[in-house]
This record gives sequence, structure tokens and C-alpha cells, in this order.
Amino acid sequence: MNHSIIRYILCRVLEFAGLFMLLPYFVGLICQEPQRFAYLCVAVVSLLAGFAGKLVKPKSKVFYAREGFVTVSLAWLLLSFVGAVPFVLTGEIPFYVDAVFETVSGLTTTGGTILTNVENLAQCTQFWRLFTHWIGGMGVLVLILAVLPLSGSYNMHLMRAESPGPTVGKLVPKVKNTARILYQIYIAITVIEIILLMITGLPLYDSATLTFSTVGTGGFGLLNSSAASYSRAAQAVILIFMLLCGVSFNIYYLFLIKKPKEALRSEELRAYLGIAAVSTLLIGINIKDNFASMGESLFQAGFQVVSVMTTTGFTTSDFNLWPSFSKTMLFLLMIVGACAGSTGGGLKVSRLVVLIKSIKNEILAAVHPRSVKKMHMDGRVVSENVVHSIRVYLAIYIVIYFLSVLLISVDNFSFETNASAVMAMFNNIGPGFDMVGPAGSFAAFSPFSKCVLMFDMLAGRLELLPLLVLFSVKTWKNR
Amino acid sequence: MNHSIIRYILCRVLEFAGLFMLLPYFVGLICQEPQRFAYLCVAVVSLLAGFAGKLVKPKSKVFYAREGFVTVSLAWLLLSFVGAVPFVLTGEIPFYVDAVFETVSGLTTTGGTILTNVENLAQCTQFWRLFTHWIGGMGVLVLILAVLPLSGSYNMHLMRAESPGPTVGKLVPKVKNTARILYQIYIAITVIEIILLMITGLPLYDSATLTFSTVGTGGFGLLNSSAASYSRAAQAVILIFMLLCGVSFNIYYLFLIKKPKEALRSEELRAYLGIAAVSTLLIGINIKDNFASMGESLFQAGFQVVSVMTTTGFTTSDFNLWPSFSKTMLFLLMIVGACAGSTGGGLKVSRLVVLIKSIKNEILAAVHPRSVKKMHMDGRVVSENVVHSIRVYLAIYIVIYFLSVLLISVDNFSFETNASAVMAMFNNIGPGFDMVGPAGSFAAFSPFSKCVLMFDMLAGRLELLPLLVLFSVKTWKNR
Repeated sequence: MNHSIIRYILCRVLEFAGLFMLLPYFVGLICQEPQRFAYLCVAVVSLLAGFAGKLVKPKSKVFYAREGFVTVSLAWLLLSFVGAVPFVLTGEIPFYVDAVFETVSGLTTTGGTILTNVENLAQCTQFWRLFTHWIGGMGVLVLILAVLPLSGSYNMHLMRAESPGPTVGKLVPKVKNTARILYQIYIAITVIEIILLMITGLPLYDSATLTFSTVGTGGFGLLNSSAASYSRAAQAVILIFMLLCGVSFNIYYLFLIKKPKEALRSEELRAYLGIAAVSTLLIGINIKDNFASMGESLFQAGFQVVSVMTTTGFTTSDFNLWPSFSKTMLFLLMIVGACAGSTGGGLKVSRLVVLIKSIKNEILAAVHPRSVKKMHMDGRVVSENVVHSIRVYLAIYIVIYFLSVLLISVDNFSFETNASAVMAMFNNIGPGFDMVGPAGSFAAFSPFSKCVLMFDMLAGRLELLPLLVLFSVKTWKNR
Repeated sequence: MNHSIIRYILCRVLEFAGLFMLLPYFVGLICQEPQRFAYLCVAVVSLLAGFAGKLVKPKSKVFYAREGFVTVSLAWLLLSFVGAVPFVLTGEIPFYVDAVFETVSGLTTTGGTILTNVENLAQCTQFWRLFTHWIGGMGVLVLILAVLPLSGSYNMHLMRAESPGPTVGKLVPKVKNTARILYQIYIAITVIEIILLMITGLPLYDSATLTFSTVGTGGFGLLNSSAASYSRAAQAVILIFMLLCGVSFNIYYLFLIKKPKEALRSEELRAYLGIAAVSTLLIGINIKDNFASMGESLFQAGFQVVSVMTTTGFTTSDFNLWPSFSKTMLFLLMIVGACAGSTGGGLKVSRLVVLIKSIKNEILAAVHPRSVKKMHMDGRVVSENVVHSIRVYLAIYIVIYFLSVLLISVDNFSFETNASAVMAMFNNIGPGFDMVGPAGSFAAFSPFSKCVLMFDMLAGRLELLPLLVLFSVKTWKNR
């Protein structure tokens, strides 16, 4: 293991953490809030520590997949531990475990909270909470790759370890340029949504913070009622941008380089929109007695379906009170998740499509053992390696899911609470059902269960392997 | 598709169904119950139809895997449809869907019932209910292979389609002899348990029927309280025989041919016993406040763990009232199931062992991409094909599981009811939690949901593929 280069990159992450934290400081400065000094404090310490730590240049540039996994995992842990400190310093989240939970939930764009009342937080704290969604949405290492003059073999290993999806599509040959394009699209979408939300009548502060939460597909809100009390126009903007940010950013790149046909041919995109449409219709019909009109129930269904599929977690209605079928449907959509290469989490639509296709193939192979059929996606052959890795992914996913449900069940909450809490955390959604439903919070869990759920959030965001590699004994053995 | 040979084998199945049904007739004759004529009626019609249908010999002996899957699926459906008729004729289960549900639950050794009071059934009906467990435990086609002079390529295809487990181990080169040995062991275990139960003071009728339910790992009982009101000695006998019937019958064969060392080296056996022991301990500690002494709570935990792992489903205590951790643990044990090649259902311990090993290997491969490690089990290399098929199995399993939960959620029962009902049906356990807990029944589900659950029971017993092949359009197309 090349420790020196990992230390070097982590110090750069620390510098970025410091820079990020200057933003809530400025917000606090404008609002004249005393809590701002907590952010300034942590910002200065992080910047100094990061700067000092990177002075010693790494001895070797050797960087393999293993270093990539470990670096990404440690970077996210570091960001979470540092990002949680101001919450404790301002006294708004007195317990450090709770503060780390809230930060992990922010960075991983989960949006599940341990706060029972978010409306009495300082504006700078609210800003920081929602800004962590924006940082985590596209990933901090992708940002570092985009702006720093790093070069060498680690680019690809870092990108692969942090980016979601079964395969990492480089948009352009250079990783650095790919990272830049991704962030440019990300910023453009962010700016457009802020403007649109302001047009609907929301102030700049609210528009900006809600946008961070939307485009990062996070789900933290400014109000205890999540998105329920905004105007229908603002809700519609949020709905559309959740949907847009659940789409692979490769699609937008294809539009930018004027290949719209190729973009629209994407099977994942079609499946994503198809699943969203069918689910909206089914849930809309199922909940029609809960609302005044069919139009209203379809809007509520659509908002919730998109919010859950894109793993955002905003709510406009307490879906915990909906009928069993709608809740089960939402539970399944939690697993499906958004498209690979978007800011959304979950299993990813492309993985689901490949799984379903491979199941079809297997049944066919059982019927006609001698017929070998290649699997196609977007007109190209899907390699056996990709199918293999998706099946392994599913197996690990299932094992971690059920183990987590077992571990948190020691707190003796209901089966529905536990099963949906882990599902919501692991897929970076936010709210679940029963105690952790839209009207509830994660506050009542024990510190032990909170740690399990934090692991799930990080494992979900980083797509399992990086964290498992970090905790594997073999990783730390030099051969 | 070779229809004529499928018809021929199905006619033989019908004959066997007729023969089986003479047994409850004789029970009814001894007890002088008028319900016995329903059984006689169906027995005679089945025997005649089977005899007539097989007069026309099959034109061709061509028999591939596809024919194997289809034959086994249709044989089980046929047995279920025919086996349900007497319940309706006697008026004890007036609706045919309910009667088929009860028969499928019996044959697949699930043991979940739609009856709210089993104690007012006629003795011949009780006998038939519990005897279906015995038929389904080892499989009707395995029985046909054992006693009829069938020969040809279909032997292996039928055996493979009906026997549980990731690989089918032929004990001896000839399928026919393997089937015979399996049934000889099965009958020996049955006889020993009957004798032991009689020694504990139970009458012959109770001992025999309870034994059918135990060795088939079914779980239908004679009393509404399942096994709770029997003496501790009888409960202990049942516990031991559940445990024994969850072990692969290959192990007993190895003992018979005096290779005890090889038998005890089995990793699956060790994992099975290890999981049972650890789970018993954890649950025993978790439920200690529910019982008078630690010994009592350990016994209750052990009985429930073994009952669930072996997918029997007998209960001595209403585990629906246990703490969340114990319930979650039991839920997970439902998935694990028993050993491959036993009469138990579930995912099977060997599949779990291979999955866990393969996950370890994948993490290692991520850390050291160039290290290729072969997986071993019982000292032998596990082929990539087996690992592949287990991963596919898991993927199909997950898809069917979640789809079923979604489909039955239209009845609007609780999430816990639905999630555990499908888990209990799919893994052939019997009781689940909440409404379908040990004190409940499946009576309240709609006919549609009952059909979904019947599909799950059959899919679980036949290990997914046969039923999927039956319902695949491609199967019925001749190339």
C-alpha cells in the first residue's frame, strides 16, 4: 500500500473541506449569526492542516485499484468527520455521533435526519447541511480531479471508485476533462434551477439551498414539512430537476456534442422514464381516495415516485399513510434507484435492466441448453464481465442489507421501521416508513444503530466495494 | 416438445395420486367417518384416468432438460389440483381455491394454512393433509423413478428438476438406485420417529401423522396450537427429527456405506449446525424475559430456530410476540433454509456458503486484480458454473420475492404481514409474522393473492426454474 500518496490526496481533500466551509461562514456573516465562527474555525484548521500535510511530497506514484478504493473511502470518512464538527461547536447538534450521522446523510445525498425540528437552525447551518448534498452529489474527488493538476494512473482509479454505475464511461479520453465536463453540466443545471425557483417567488437563499438539495438528489429541506408547503409551481420545478438529475450526465454530454439521437436511444433512459410513468399511474390510482381529485393524486404520486427513484427523498405528502400497495411500490423504487452516472443512488436502472435481461437468457438457456445468446444494450454487446460484476453486486447488496436490518433490530423498533430505514439509508433516499416516515426522524435509534446506518449510507453512495476493501484485512497486507 | 412422453409420465403420477388417496380412505374406514367416500371416489377416478391415459404408449423417447422441467411442474400442479378435490367434496374446505392452497401448502411442505380451526376436521382429512407433506418431502417423481421400470435419458432430467440444491449428487451411478436409496433412508427415518413418538405416549395415529409432517419438514399440525401442547419429550423428538431431516440425505448414505469421516467433513453440515447453534444462543438471550428460566428460553429458541431453518414451521410459542431482533433473525433463517438434498426448503446452506465465499473472493480480486483464487468446498474445487448458477438463482429469487410482495400488497394488509407471508411461502416455512403469525392464518387473503402465494410455494419447492420454464413462451415453441 502506498501510504504517502494516500496521505497527500487526503490533505488536498482537507483543503477543499476548508474552502467549502468558508461558504456557510459568509452566509453567517450576511445574516450576522454568531454560529458562523464555528465554520470559520473549522475552515481555518482544515486549510492549515491540509496545507501542512501536503508539503511532504509523496515518495512514490504507484497507485493501483486498491489505493483508489482506500483513498476514496478515507476521503469520504474524513469529510464526514470534519464536516460534522461545526454542528457540535454551534451546539445545534450536541452529540458528535448525531452530527456525523447528519453529515454522512448530507454528503451521501441521503437526506435522512436526526433532527426533529430543522426550522430553528441558524441559516449558516442550514446552508452547510444542504450544501453537503451538492458536494456529495457529483463527488469531491471528481471535483479534485477536475481542478487540480494531478496526473498519473490514479485518475482513473479514483474516478472509478467514486462514480456510480456498473461501468465508468469516460466522456472524453482524459479523466481530467471528463471530470471537468461533468462539473460544468452540474453547475449549469444548478444555476438554471436557482433562477427558476426564484421566478416562482422563492428568495435567493431558499432557492439556492433547495437547489443544492435537489440537484445532489439529497432531500434535506429547510422546513419540517419538507416540500409540502411550497407553491405548486416551485414543487413542479423541484420535481422536474429531480427527474433531470436522476438521468446519466453522459446523456447531457451527448446532447451538448449534438448527438441527440444517440442520447435518446439509451435503454437505461427509456427504462427509467418508463418505470417512473407506470409507477406514477399505479400509485395515482391506488391513492385516489386520499386526495380531492385524480389530477391531485397523480401529481402527489408523480412527485413521490420521482423523489424516491432519484433517491432524493423530498415529500409533499406523508406517504406513510398511503395504502400498502403504494408503500410497497415506493419500497421497490427505492431499490431501483436512478440512472448510472447521475447524482442519484440505488441499485441503478441499468443494473436492473441487465439483471432482467440475464434472467431471461438463463431461462432460455435452461430450455435450449445449446443456444448461446449474447446480451445487448444500446445496440452494443454487454460483456460477461459486466454481467458478472452486477450479479456479484446484487449478492453483496443483499447480504449487507439483511445484516444491517438484523443489527439495528436490537433497538426493538418495528419490522417495517427497520426494513425501510436500512433500505432508505442504503439507497440514499432519506425517509422510510413507520417511525422513520416523512413525519418522523432517525433520532430515536441508538448510537450503535446510527453507526450501522452510516456505514450503509456510505456503502450505498460508494457502491459497496470501496468500503468493503477498506475494512478487509487483506488490503493492509503487503504481499 | 415431446408431448406424448409428458402425458405418459403424468398418467403415472395420476395413478400414484390414486394409490396415495386410498390411505385416508382406510383411515376413514377404521374411524367410521362418512368423509372417507370422498377419498375413495377421487382415488378410483384418478386410478382409472391414469390407467386409461397410459395405455397409448409414447411415440418417441426424446427427453431433454426442457421436457424434464415441464413434466415436473405439471406433475406438481396435477397432484395439487387432484389432491384438493376431496377437501371440497367433504365440505371441509368449501372453496376450491382454498382447497388447492391447502394442498399446495401440503405438497410443497410449506405448512401455511387457510384453516382457522384444524381440530374439527375428520381424521381421514387430517391424515391426508399431513400425508401430503410426506409425499412432497422427497418428491413424487423421485418415488416414481424408484419403483417403476422407467429407463432412459429422462431419469436424470426428472431427478434434477425435482431435487433441491445447487448440484444434484447421484449417490450411485444409476438414477433409479439413487432414488431407491433416498426413499429407503426416508422410510427408515419415518419409522424410527413414529416409534419414538409412541414411546413418549402419543397414540399411533398422532405419532404417524406428526411424523409425516416432521420428516417432510412440512409443519401442518393436528392441533390449533401446533406443537405447543405436546409433552416436552415429544417436542424434543420432533426437534431432533426436524434437525435430522434438514441434513442432506447424502450424509446418511455416507454413514451407511461406512464413510463417516467424509460425512462429517461436509462444510454444509458444519455451517448448518453452526448457524443453528449461534442463532439459538442469540435468540435465547434475546427472549429470556419472555420465559421463566434461561433453559426454557433456550429450548424455545432452539425449537423455533430449527423449525424455521429446516422450513418445517411447527411452533411451541407465538414468536410473533418476541422482540424485533429475534423476529428478524427468524426472518433471515427463513431465507437460509436447510441443506441441499434434504427435505427442507429455502435458499439452502450450501448456496449461502458458496455466495459468502465468492463475495470474499471478489473483494480480494478488487484489491489484488491479478490474483486468481479458486473456490473450494469439502476439499474440492467449486466450478465457475456452479457459482454462476447460484448467483443467477439469487437474482431470480430476489425478483420473484419482491414482485410477489408487491402483488399481494393490493389486499392492503401490513408491510410486515406481506413481507413475511411471501418469505414464509416462498421458502416453504409456514407461519410468518403479524396476521400470518403462529396464531393467525392465510384465510383473509384474496383469491388472487392466494394464487400468487401458491406460485411462490411451488417455485420455492421446485427451485424456481421448472415453473419459470413452464410459463415461458419460448418453451412451447418448436425450433
